Amino acid sequence: MLEIGSTFTKTIVADERTIKKIAEVSGDMNPIHLDKEYAEHSMFGRRIAHGLFCINAISMIIGNHLPGNGTILLSQNFQYIKPVYIDDQIEVTVTIVNCLPGNKYTLRTLCKNQMGDIVLDGESVVRWEDS
Amino acid sequence: MLEIGSTFTKTIVADERTIKKIAEVSGDMNPIHLDKEYAEHSMFGRRIAHGLFCINAISMIIGNHLPGNGTILLSQNFQYIKPVYIDDQIEVTVTIVNCLPGNKYTLRTLCKNQMGDIVLDGESVVRWEDS
Repeated sequence: MLEIGSTFTKTIVADERTIKKIAEVSGDMNPIHLDKEYAEHSMFGRRIAHGLFCINAISMIIGNHLPGNGTILLSQNFQYIKPVYIDDQIEVTVTIVNCLPGNKYTLRTLCKNQMGDIVLDGESVVRWEDS
Repeated sequence: MLEIGSTFTKTIVADERTIKKIAEVSGDMNPIHLDKEYAEHSMFGRRIAHGLFCINAISMIIGNHLPGNGTILLSQNFQYIKPVYIDDQIEVTVTIVNCLPGNKYTLRTLCKNQMGDIVLDGESVVRWEDS
């Protein structure tokens, strides 16, 4: 049984290896993520992680832990509030914020960096039945 | 210069290898994607791709093609309308639907399966400057 307020948190690092794997699997070769020199001349001054870095971690928590096995995504939204830089430590938290008819749940998905700044905020609506 | 109506389309296949790579990189081991027997007893009757399958492809188009190099994501939303099954051929289309002040653009992101059914609909807001 899932309850409003149930939460799961995991901290992951946006390390070089992970960023390269995300680029390889998605095919997203945007130089803002991969090219040091290009990124140094950008508004950020250095490379940033793909938005996929946080989305991957959120998917991992939703698919494995909360709600876990058998969860079906219905919708997701993500606001990218601050950049995630290479080697940032990102604390990813998924919290059940609403229970809806038909075994549906609204989850808040929040990512903070090592300074405690919110880098991503969003919500996912999922269907989940206890199996 | 980006214009309203500019569009980019690519068709990709949700093949076994891609689904396994998505599971590996994200860590999302939800058996609805990976476990044939489990999925046969689910409401879908067979395995479905991660939501990440379409999101990865959308990121690839936005990062590489439209708008391309140096695009920064500001927000994204995704409605998962129908499941993507293993080996489905998914046509992913990104279209510029609005130009906003401050070099911001709204992109519609649409994924259709080989039957022409919409499996994902959504919007991304990005910032992009011609470099």
